Amino acid sequence: MHIDIQQANATAVNAIQAAQPVLKGIGTAIDVVPGMKKNLILHAGPPITWEKMSGPLRGAVIGALIYEGLAKTPEEAEKMAATDKIEYSPWHEHDGVGPMAGVGTASMPVRILENQTNGRKTFCTLNEGLGKVLRYGAFSEEVITRLKWMETVLAPVLKAAIPLAPQINLKNMIAQALQMGDEVHNRNKAATSLLIRELAPAIVKTDFPTADKAKVLEFMHSNDHFFLNLSMPAAKMMLQAAEWIEGSTIVTTMCRNGTEFGIRVAGLKDRWFTGPAQIVKGLLFPGFSEEDCNPDIGDSAITETCGIGGFSMAAAPAIVKFVGGTVNDAMNFTRKMYEITDGESQAFQIPNMEFRGSPLGINLLKVCEKNILPQINTGIAHKNAGVGQVGAGLVNPPMKCFEDALEAYVEKYCKDE
Amino acid sequence: MHIDIQQANATAVNAIQAAQPVLKGIGTAIDVVPGMKKNLILHAGPPITWEKMSGPLRGAVIGALIYEGLAKTPEEAEKMAATDKIEYSPWHEHDGVGPMAGVGTASMPVRILENQTNGRKTFCTLNEGLGKVLRYGAFSEEVITRLKWMETVLAPVLKAAIPLAPQINLKNMIAQALQMGDEVHNRNKAATSLLIRELAPAIVKTDFPTADKAKVLEFMHSNDHFFLNLSMPAAKMMLQAAEWIEGSTIVTTMCRNGTEFGIRVAGLKDRWFTGPAQIVKGLLFPGFSEEDCNPDIGDSAITETCGIGGFSMAAAPAIVKFVGGTVNDAMNFTRKMYEITDGESQAFQIPNMEFRGSPLGINLLKVCEKNILPQINTGIAHKNAGVGQVGAGLVNPPMKCFEDALEAYVEKYCKDE
Repeated sequence: MHIDIQQANATAVNAIQAAQPVLKGIGTAIDVVPGMKKNLILHAGPPITWEKMSGPLRGAVIGALIYEGLAKTPEEAEKMAATDKIEYSPWHEHDGVGPMAGVGTASMPVRILENQTNGRKTFCTLNEGLGKVLRYGAFSEEVITRLKWMETVLAPVLKAAIPLAPQINLKNMIAQALQMGDEVHNRNKAATSLLIRELAPAIVKTDFPTADKAKVLEFMHSNDHFFLNLSMPAAKMMLQAAEWIEGSTIVTTMCRNGTEFGIRVAGLKDRWFTGPAQIVKGLLFPGFSEEDCNPDIGDSAITETCGIGGFSMAAAPAIVKFVGGTVNDAMNFTRKMYEITDGESQAFQIPNMEFRGSPLGINLLKVCEKNILPQINTGIAHKNAGVGQVGAGLVNPPMKCFEDALEAYVEKYCKDE
Repeated sequence: MHIDIQQANATAVNAIQAAQPVLKGIGTAIDVVPGMKKNLILHAGPPITWEKMSGPLRGAVIGALIYEGLAKTPEEAEKMAATDKIEYSPWHEHDGVGPMAGVGTASMPVRILENQTNGRKTFCTLNEGLGKVLRYGAFSEEVITRLKWMETVLAPVLKAAIPLAPQINLKNMIAQALQMGDEVHNRNKAATSLLIRELAPAIVKTDFPTADKAKVLEFMHSNDHFFLNLSMPAAKMMLQAAEWIEGSTIVTTMCRNGTEFGIRVAGLKDRWFTGPAQIVKGLLFPGFSEEDCNPDIGDSAITETCGIGGFSMAAAPAIVKFVGGTVNDAMNFTRKMYEITDGESQAFQIPNMEFRGSPLGINLLKVCEKNILPQINTGIAHKNAGVGQVGAGLVNPPMKCFEDALEAYVEKYCKDE
């Protein structure tokens, strides 16, 4: 069997480049997410069972069961979570992504993105803000109350506003944000600002009470990561276009469930290759130490898979104040990622590198051959359920994912020769 | 007479650093600007007579007379402008600044800034947007109509909204924008976004009709330079604190009226030192050539005087797409400006230089001794009245200003020894 790997990879990179993710609207997960069910909990990362889940993912599951009215107390939720009444599945197998624990359930409002190139959709919940939030495994009353407000006020206002606003092309908005010091993974300040600018007049034009409209604008304004839940499904959408391309060694998914890191590869379709999630090195909030940190968690590494996030840190020098290191380190991370990628983004440019396109299309073969791991920056969750974020920093995938994927690739494509 | 120049300059730089400009509100020029009169036209740059005015400044004067109802036609306005019925004075002598032609008249709404350190105020009109606008010398009906809308809708809505918003510290907002790729002279995209985020909930809360509130948000959103008319009076306010410090050779004003470039120096108080305004080198809009360009015009060089604008271009690599040159040039401009400044801003940091403070406090002696002129980036007006902007680029002051100021300094401080 002859495979032209270069050609297959060029096809994959072109498909990623061609994607045009636009914000279509807001829906309820049960209505719009493929395969969504009342007793299904979607989560970040590769597949996992309750038994193997880390603290923050368990915490988020507990919170979600209470939010859905399936359990009344954390104790009840915890018991139920371990039974076969509740099913679990990765967001990535339902055309979506979730930050950190990434838990998504039937009643949650989701953003709907559409790829103007092929009509396919991706989904992501709305960002809850900072502090005690479900995605970091917190499940107190404050968390559930906020989720209910998001369902009953935030989502309906945005749902009504989006059709009144000019169409938002997220690729273009991310490209602008990269000229404004964001890398749209751990720095989304510019992108969030651009989104607010675009939506504010439309929000004013909706028929909701003034107090609700003001509260929605204040909520978005209070959270510089509000855009993260758009950069992630936008990145997912670009990579979705390459999720099955025969013979290609381009990585289409990198994600973590807090226990394992998982990758998928274009030529190996929906097969997961996993290894142990690593400990993130970075800046911790006062009062926390490395012992408090959960291993790497979340689907947000989809940004790096798409050439933004840690791959575009050179565009976001100010991020080092949040994730640690120097500006020179940030520049070097981006430079190094060109060594393991096959393309350079046509849309995303790094001003500090004279507008060079960001490193796009991680090539499994280059990772293995050069022994250079993708560079990810990320938030850090407390290892115990119910606590929340403790910091942010830098991390890599385990090499095992890539080694296993390479072995499977060889098995599939090279054994019959 | 013994003068400790170093000490005097340290006092000046400290006064600039200590300023805390906050947005107090909106007023009408006649009510709030010191010395404002019905027949007075404030303009950018050093003092000038009608006879010596260049095309865009004349165009703006014509437009302003029509806007004020003092003339009905451009012809009538032009005649009146040349008589002693109309008086002219620089904004800088009325605690204000004006971009490009910078024309301000009695009925115009102005932003009011207050220095929380000393209670002093500065003023600036509201930014009109792009295209055919008064500040570039256009005076057609479209220009006057927009100015009237600004007076009757934009200004009242903002006036009502500002007290409902959290207090806006402009120094802090500029500092954030510098981490987001702005230098707040020719790139104000991030700062404008931050301002909209801050004001949007308050605008919603005002009692104006929904359509007006939406229009105001759309107007701000349509113009990435909306913040310029805040960065300028904020910079003016910081320098105002040093406008008279005995013995200091720190430059407190750099500005242009389209004919002459003028500077003022802390130890020489309100004396102007002028030289011919230079031609700006840069990127012109399609259809225009260097022959169309008016010489350098506007008070916006107050940003450079305050260490931002051209002095902070290293923070705004994407600006080279607008004013020309490479990212490396932008870095070098900033590096060079440290050679002629006495301080580094405590508030404004350049991420690309590992957060070094921006070069602050132009020292007249260093400019003359090293023969290094301040680096300014700026918009370019068409030389004829009524046309508008033709591009943007880079420019320097004429050395004559600095030589004359040095001579005056020697005359004042060194002759009696």
